[in-house]
Amino acid sequence: MPSVRQSWVASANGHADFPLQNLPFGVFRRAGTSETPRVGVAIGDDILDIPACVAAELFKAFGDDVQHAARACVSPSLNALMGLGAASRRALRDALTALLASDVDENARQIEQYALVAQSSAELFLPVEVGDYTDFYASVHHATNVGSMFRPDNPLLPNYKWVPIGYHGRASSLVVSGTPIARPSGQRKGPNDAEPTVGPSRLFDYELELGAFVGTGNALGTTIGIADAESHLWGYCLLNDWSARDLQAWEYQPLGPFLAKNFASTIGAWVVTPEALEPFRAPLAPRAEGDPAPLPYLTDEGDRARGGLALTVEAWLRTTRMREAREPAVRVSTGSSLDLYWSFAQMLAHHASNGCNMRPGDLLGSGTISGPEKGSRGCMLELTWRGAEPLELPNGERRGFLEAGDELTITAFAERDGAVRIGFGRCTGQVIG
Amino acid sequence: MPSVRQSWVASANGHADFPLQNLPFGVFRRAGTSETPRVGVAIGDDILDIPACVAAELFKAFGDDVQHAARACVSPSLNALMGLGAASRRALRDALTALLASDVDENARQIEQYALVAQSSAELFLPVEVGDYTDFYASVHHATNVGSMFRPDNPLLPNYKWVPIGYHGRASSLVVSGTPIARPSGQRKGPNDAEPTVGPSRLFDYELELGAFVGTGNALGTTIGIADAESHLWGYCLLNDWSARDLQAWEYQPLGPFLAKNFASTIGAWVVTPEALEPFRAPLAPRAEGDPAPLPYLTDEGDRARGGLALTVEAWLRTTRMREAREPAVRVSTGSSLDLYWSFAQMLAHHASNGCNMRPGDLLGSGTISGPEKGSRGCMLELTWRGAEPLELPNGERRGFLEAGDELTITAFAERDGAVRIGFGRCTGQVIG
Repeated sequence: MPSVRQSWVASANGHADFPLQNLPFGVFRRAGTSETPRVGVAIGDDILDIPACVAAELFKAFGDDVQHAARACVSPSLNALMGLGAASRRALRDALTALLASDVDENARQIEQYALVAQSSAELFLPVEVGDYTDFYASVHHATNVGSMFRPDNPLLPNYKWVPIGYHGRASSLVVSGTPIARPSGQRKGPNDAEPTVGPSRLFDYELELGAFVGTGNALGTTIGIADAESHLWGYCLLNDWSARDLQAWEYQPLGPFLAKNFASTIGAWVVTPEALEPFRAPLAPRAEGDPAPLPYLTDEGDRARGGLALTVEAWLRTTRMREAREPAVRVSTGSSLDLYWSFAQMLAHHASNGCNMRPGDLLGSGTISGPEKGSRGCMLELTWRGAEPLELPNGERRGFLEAGDELTITAFAERDGAVRIGFGRCTGQVIG
Repeated sequence: MPSVRQSWVASANGHADFPLQNLPFGVFRRAGTSETPRVGVAIGDDILDIPACVAAELFKAFGDDVQHAARACVSPSLNALMGLGAASRRALRDALTALLASDVDENARQIEQYALVAQSSAELFLPVEVGDYTDFYASVHHATNVGSMFRPDNPLLPNYKWVPIGYHGRASSLVVSGTPIARPSGQRKGPNDAEPTVGPSRLFDYELELGAFVGTGNALGTTIGIADAESHLWGYCLLNDWSARDLQAWEYQPLGPFLAKNFASTIGAWVVTPEALEPFRAPLAPRAEGDPAPLPYLTDEGDRARGGLALTVEAWLRTTRMREAREPAVRVSTGSSLDLYWSFAQMLAHHASNGCNMRPGDLLGSGTISGPEKGSRGCMLELTWRGAEPLELPNGERRGFLEAGDELTITAFAERDGAVRIGFGRCTGQVIG
């Protein structure tokens, strides 16, 4: 393994999520204060306070572009920085790397004193003010599994392998990791019920997803070509699209999911950049025999040659009894972003192909990431086949769906020989009521 | 007819849309200037510039609440004013009425000189910065007609008369009346095509809708009771949910419409208040024999007793040839908001029933307003039965769907004996390409 660049922030070296090679962006303040939230990057167990570095004029040595980008971090959201685009992000990231690397540690003492905040004493906020949130359905395994439960005779619809299927989600109810999630009430009607009844969802679920944020957008009436699409994706996050399956089954025809989803979606606090993920590109799962080639506006041979996002994604469950017994969360699934049928670049190019305008900070969700094996299914609906095969937890508890007090956590990481492992932190939420 | 309060703005008296009794809110500036857009109300052929009245201290006589509301109008959107809620709107409206009424015209000379802008010399903007836009499907006639084309064996789904069906629309592509509408390209696949092709929509349509804006919202995890729902609705607008029917047919399963709709939706520039509409309440169309009673969370007997929004809604078409021949637009349909199966109060109570949070300025669309008669169908898809029965225009042209150059305009008005007619102005867009 080649020698790895180290940080003078000791906790970063060997950190499972946040080594010097990651530097994900987030919005934070010191917990228990009324400070204005602001942009920082995670480094080891700490956060580098970018506005504090601006105030200390630490970016002066890096030129105008970097200073401009750093000033955009004096903000309670990443939107302004995202709107500056990819070149600006790369320049700022290079400067942050230089400030934090152990080989150029001239400012270390000053940063440590004035611009480093322990994550354990920080409050993290929604990193982005999302104008529009679109959720896709990019896992063919998820689509096939769910389809076979909702439409046994017609699991995968004929449009699936042509169209990156997506729908608009609710932006107002996006919350940051750690926010408790109230189980929604709504109309449910079983196949044998004469009429619907109203009450708390009994089939309460999570969906393990990744999200991508738009950087520079496009004007209404213009498109984003597939070859350019990746450069418009500013960064990636963890996403849990909580779902009330009983509400969904009754309401979703003909216009799609609505109250079954829009009561809350949780996103992770850290936005990981394409630069941090670049070393982990890997070949995408090959298309199945007989699958159509994507239409030209969705075809980028270069994209396929470069490979796709190679992230291992995991879901962890901890019940109230486990928490009381101080037992750790149990992993309920492990999947891979390489199993997605459509890439984020394809989702974005499709989304803008009709002239729909994207704004900085708009969020695209992958949809539930499920793989071909049972252990890689990204939601309870699939894992337990709608409750028919409940999960058996180590303490003897069983779960068909999530119950009150359950804490569900999503994680993601990238690792490979010759590169330093990076991760996304945690995207967690406890079910209330 | 009782004597009618007049305005000293002469053009207001007898105005088809904007008499003293209406006073709809909008956002404007003098055309051709770089003035900051700001809030005003339409009065006759003019706009009352509320920030100019604030600067002239004309609200001082009306007390703190009115002054607070008027200061919220020093803004390029109505959001701040909407967030102050219904009591604030009523107080400001009363003050504006007093300023504009001919019986208390002490400030007329000053207002005329400094705070009245001719609509003909004003530029109108999107009146609201919409956080989330939700479109419903509240016309049972529309749902039945469309259902019988998309699903001949199953036109009205079993959930329709229980659930106010809705879906999330795209906020970024909301545009104000007058904005040209680029016909979108996308995937189309006819039933006899082996594969989809990509190209401009051939079945390009409008949808005649009304929109309602949320005033005070609700916190995530709380609900809005049906009895309170109406007080959360700040005002109403015209809405055209442009639709590419060929894209829609191919993409909409299983997650609903997406690229078929999100390239643009046009809203009228004027937001009409509940107070202006109050005199026109009328009994709702009775539910059909055998229809289920709405579930308790959607039942407000008081609401039903008070009656519903009684608006006549119309769609007007003008082709390029008609424009070149200086022929006026032709009315292609006339409907009524009383034919909606679900009220806006029911839509809002349903939307928040799962704890989904609403923010000031969020937009709810009614969905296409169609009535039981052919002449009251609110989109080309229904009017021409998917093109099978084209419209015959007075100049001999025929239209199955909209074509390049066509200008589609939506209007709405309320009138009844004993009240002064009010209207919404125009919601118009020309199809480009």
